[in-house]
Amino acid sequence: MVYSNESTYRVYYEDTDVAGVVYHANYLKFMERGRTDWLRALQIEQSDLQTQYGIVFVMVTSEIFFRKPAKFDDQVTVKTDLLGLRGASVRFEQEISVSDVLVCSAVNVVGCVDMTTFMPKRIPRPVRRIFQGGE
Amino acid sequence: MVYSNESTYRVYYEDTDVAGVVYHANYLKFMERGRTDWLRALQIEQSDLQTQYGIVFVMVTSEIFFRKPAKFDDQVTVKTDLLGLRGASVRFEQEISVSDVLVCSAVNVVGCVDMTTFMPKRIPRPVRRIFQGGE
Amino acid sequence: MVYSNESTYRVYYEDTDVAGVVYHANYLKFMERGRTDWLRALQIEQSDLQTQYGIVFVMVTSEIFFRKPAKFDDQVTVKTDLLGLRGASVRFEQEISVSDVLVCSAVNVVGCVDMTTFMPKRIPRPVRRIFQGGE
Amino acid sequence: MVYSNESTYRVYYEDTDVAGVVYHANYLKFMERGRTDWLRALQIEQSDLQTQYGIVFVMVTSEIFFRKPAKFDDQVTVKTDLLGLRGASVRFEQEISVSDVLVCSAVNVVGCVDMTTFMPKRIPRPVRRIFQGGE
Repeated sequence: MVYSNESTYRVYYEDTDVAGVVYHANYLKFMERGRTDWLRALQIEQSDLQTQYGIVFVMVTSEIFFRKPAKFDDQVTVKTDLLGLRGASVRFEQEISVSDVLVCSAVNVVGCVDMTTFMPKRIPRPVRRIFQGGE
Repeated sequence: MVYSNESTYRVYYEDTDVAGVVYHANYLKFMERGRTDWLRALQIEQSDLQTQYGIVFVMVTSEIFFRKPAKFDDQVTVKTDLLGLRGASVRFEQEISVSDVLVCSAVNVVGCVDMTTFMPKRIPRPVRRIFQGGE
Repeated sequence: MVYSNESTYRVYYEDTDVAGVVYHANYLKFMERGRTDWLRALQIEQSDLQTQYGIVFVMVTSEIFFRKPAKFDDQVTVKTDLLGLRGASVRFEQEISVSDVLVCSAVNVVGCVDMTTFMPKRIPRPVRRIFQGGE
Repeated sequence: MVYSNESTYRVYYEDTDVAGVVYHANYLKFMERGRTDWLRALQIEQSDLQTQYGIVFVMVTSEIFFRKPAKFDDQVTVKTDLLGLRGASVRFEQEISVSDVLVCSAVNVVGCVDMTTFMPKRIPRPVRRIFQGGE
């Protein structure tokens, strides 16, 4: 059962800006990688979600707190926890840290939508069951 | 007096993702462009802030609501409003719309920090005065 | 007749890296914006190319020379010239300059491909005619 | 002795565009990660290059051939080979492949420059010696 997942990524030049630190919007990229790897740890492939169910998960809201700057060459660890599950959305708590120092934290809500109309759609039962750990 | 500012940007290929719409983290880039152009409308150059005061503004928190997808070739209009001013931070309300349809809205708090230590620093009085419209 | 096109873009924080200048891969983004706006100046919409002809233009080769660094807040001007036209590809010369100083130049070849198989496809006659200025 | 280096990266949503494949400029990002990891394999830290020698390596030219599209979720392998060494520049051959299929190849020349003036500077002897495998 994988409710929680941790992945580590390297900070490259592409992630930084002229202020010498990670460009703020890129923390959202690291968190998105974290959610992707969380799904993968549950053996859910996003391409399968599209072909089998015609759905895609999209960001709905983010409350994000940029606490400290991460820098070039840092290893950032993204911790992803499932906070809650509703009919058509999933709530995650995500934390990014560098050497155990918290640099960024967020509550991110991701919605299940139809992949062509982008209208909300119930999370398919088999996927929901995996999220609930009931497989 | 410019408390509010509107700028328009085009959505290019670089801004989209495989789901066919603007990649969520890129809305934060559009908002950052909006704040930069808001500052520029007040005739504040960020390079001057660094050379004159040794400060840089960095994102502290963002509460962001992704409402609808913007698409390739769309013109996005970013509206930037000053919500409040504290000793070392500025609170903005920002809205992104396409043809008057709201696609993304956020409350973004930006902090004034020392450009080398990244520790909070009071917003210099002349800058504060411009923000307050006291010119 | 528009064989040549010039567009100007601002360098924002998102475009820079820790070295204090525009991140090299982002010059390719500016060039891609230039080609998009070149097409738009010819009144060709890329979405129409997809719906009418099922094609999309993709990069095939780039020979790029990074001459000088562009910096935060610079206005970069992208000049896009049609160099040549073949059955399924277009060759562009593109130059990026800041205040008339050349910062980056490239010869970029863009191919016409089927939008689902990504296999090369002849440029449709009406599009070719517009490229040749035969309108 | 490490003249050649291979690293593998995952393709995330952030790397793709509306055409459903990796956005072309992002192959340059993957190659830059490859060169960074090549340096790291030689135990050269880029931050040390800055503090010890006041230098930074920047892209000078790239001849790049985009052969096939890489897609969301692909694992891309970047192979980095030292082709040649001059006074102030290094020539690399780099290849990106997905499951042993070559998707992108390039010859990239990287220059050694002063980190503040961005003027060319000889590669410091100790660094050159490591590149030549003469340690």
